[in-house]
Amino acid sequence: MELYKDLETVTKWFKALEPIGTDKKGGVTRLGYSKTEDVMHGAIRNIARNLGLKSSGDEVGNTYIHEKNYDKYYVIGSHLDSVINGGRYDGVAGILSGLLVLKWIKEEGLNIPVKVAAFRCEESSAFGIATVGSSLITHTLDVDIMKQVKNQEGNSLYETLKSKGYNPHCKKIEGVLGYFELHIEQGRVLEVSNKKIGIVNAIAAATRYWLFIEGRQDHSGATPMGIRKDALCAAAEIVTELEKYADEEAANSTVGTIGYIANSPNAFNVIPGNVKMGIDIRGIDKKSINKVDDEIVEFIKKVCEKRGLKYKLVPISKAKPVKLDEELKLNLAKTAEELKEEYMIMNSGAGHDAMKFAEITPTGMVFIPCRDGVSHNKDEDINFEDVVRGSKIIFEQLKKLALQ
Amino acid sequence: MELYKDLETVTKWFKALEPIGTDKKGGVTRLGYSKTEDVMHGAIRNIARNLGLKSSGDEVGNTYIHEKNYDKYYVIGSHLDSVINGGRYDGVAGILSGLLVLKWIKEEGLNIPVKVAAFRCEESSAFGIATVGSSLITHTLDVDIMKQVKNQEGNSLYETLKSKGYNPHCKKIEGVLGYFELHIEQGRVLEVSNKKIGIVNAIAAATRYWLFIEGRQDHSGATPMGIRKDALCAAAEIVTELEKYADEEAANSTVGTIGYIANSPNAFNVIPGNVKMGIDIRGIDKKSINKVDDEIVEFIKKVCEKRGLKYKLVPISKAKPVKLDEELKLNLAKTAEELKEEYMIMNSGAGHDAMKFAEITPTGMVFIPCRDGVSHNKDEDINFEDVVRGSKIIFEQLKKLALQ
Repeated sequence: MELYKDLETVTKWFKALEPIGTDKKGGVTRLGYSKTEDVMHGAIRNIARNLGLKSSGDEVGNTYIHEKNYDKYYVIGSHLDSVINGGRYDGVAGILSGLLVLKWIKEEGLNIPVKVAAFRCEESSAFGIATVGSSLITHTLDVDIMKQVKNQEGNSLYETLKSKGYNPHCKKIEGVLGYFELHIEQGRVLEVSNKKIGIVNAIAAATRYWLFIEGRQDHSGATPMGIRKDALCAAAEIVTELEKYADEEAANSTVGTIGYIANSPNAFNVIPGNVKMGIDIRGIDKKSINKVDDEIVEFIKKVCEKRGLKYKLVPISKAKPVKLDEELKLNLAKTAEELKEEYMIMNSGAGHDAMKFAEITPTGMVFIPCRDGVSHNKDEDINFEDVVRGSKIIFEQLKKLALQ
Repeated sequence: MELYKDLETVTKWFKALEPIGTDKKGGVTRLGYSKTEDVMHGAIRNIARNLGLKSSGDEVGNTYIHEKNYDKYYVIGSHLDSVINGGRYDGVAGILSGLLVLKWIKEEGLNIPVKVAAFRCEESSAFGIATVGSSLITHTLDVDIMKQVKNQEGNSLYETLKSKGYNPHCKKIEGVLGYFELHIEQGRVLEVSNKKIGIVNAIAAATRYWLFIEGRQDHSGATPMGIRKDALCAAAEIVTELEKYADEEAANSTVGTIGYIANSPNAFNVIPGNVKMGIDIRGIDKKSINKVDDEIVEFIKKVCEKRGLKYKLVPISKAKPVKLDEELKLNLAKTAEELKEEYMIMNSGAGHDAMKFAEITPTGMVFIPCRDGVSHNKDEDINFEDVVRGSKIIFEQLKKLALQ
């Protein structure tokens, strides 16, 4: 009966947010620091008002919902922005989970200091860099980078913040006792493992490169095999080899992917002259990531030399994996067990605002399944029941922490 | 001194044609059965008139230049159309070579029955099928196909012929004693071999497929290696394997190319869900082509089964290689030798109008180098001297044939 009521509440909230930023393709486009993201923040403040809760903002546009003004408090955070043609649950589920916890605290008359934080611009779709709002407020984002990165309109993040009346040189957040985030998994691990809850151990980091291979564009019919310089043939060897290296490190949760490849001139009867590809290596074990990284960089050199091709390897990122708080992880797992949830300890392949808070406070994350692992896509779907389940774990954990 | 005069003539003719169909990118766009192609045919008729020669046309728009009306005659043929943003020598060199031969015949007062034939729509860029004019007049093109293939405006070849006043059911060409064609090589074999003249042995045929691989689009960070269905990883294995099979058949002049690949959704952090690729196998030895064909088809099945991927293999063409006339080939080689040209016997990787005439008459082809093997491109370039050299071989050969 109680679950039914909570489900009704969560469903109502999701439905209220659903139309905001709907695009022609059926997904939502709510880019960071756009007017659509502003509308999302307004809508959350509206829900808070109806619950009899306060709202406040910080110097960079993040929104906080809370019952009182606390000096020391726990944060339940996530984001309200989306990728282009994205789904409706990535980020939003975490915010509504926080509101549900606040509602339960209020209804039970408990004295637990919690602020729900909606961070700006978590997705890299707007400015090419992710977790902007949470990075700014935890002082983990460089001012120079803010001036370099630009949105599609050509405005830098720095200018955008200024023009919206925000302060890129904001004060660092204070008084945070701990950080929680519920998020959709964005993968198929829970589904494949038949679990409803994931307690996150670590958040993977990405090592990324752009690779440009320069061969020689020739007529496919008139150029004998022996005198070819086929850029795509080199690229193919690299794709295969990266998969092999990552497979060898699968036990350490490292993955390697070529998600992007552009072949040029890309015509049926022309030997590929140029290939551009994106190399993405992720994992939670820096040693394992470095192994795959070193192996593929060495192989690229070898294959291009063998084939007489030029290449350019441009590093984009070499992030460090983030291990979440060990004690909090074990406690969340214990709480899940007490609540008789079918849970598993797992890693996060994607990045989250939690990464930034892990640098300043004990941080825990709860994953819920998303259908078929689909995310960043209009077909993203979840069971609202799982939001209630996951929120309950955070709520019970907070009770233990605050009332002990 | 004589070469100087011939060079001057050829240069003048090329310069006169140069501006026709010039596009913004600096190349020429003279699509088959377009108004621009009409202008090219008009310009050739104009050159003929200045030489005191006759012009005539056939039922499908091909143009013939000749001194008299012959019942039995040799044809020197090629084409005046181009690909989109193409070069100025592919096809045109062969027509101007023919005109040069006619000029020499006239100047020397010889009685050699020759018609220079400019065929329509040799490139597949207009209607997706190649050698249209020469196929029509040799009755090697199916009426059904003419009704199926369409240009960018959506008009079928059949409709286009009708609307321009031509007759898709034209009479077959008669009285042809032999066929010659000079063409730029469109490859780098002559250049790499340091030869000025190629005498063509056979014209390669293409076996072509579209391959569609369907995997599973997933988040690259959140999807462990073990549960992936990466379409690009399968594609990469196929690219590598095709190269291997073709390398093994290099001695038989067979080549294999993946020139086109489209990866979807093609994003840095998304495991490729779908790949479309074009498979192009060419050669002059049908047995060798079939070997590579069978091997790659078998491998595609194997790799997709191994990876649990769906695929669709759509055959586009299975053409037969065309062996040119053996006796004429040896005679052309002998003539080249007598003229002290540095020549080689070679195969043509690309298709030509000569393929169609080889079905009805003894046919010979002479290749000249194009700089860096570049063709179908604004940077296509040749030495006009080589046009004179090649034409001289055809002229001397014709003298032997007609005056013996």
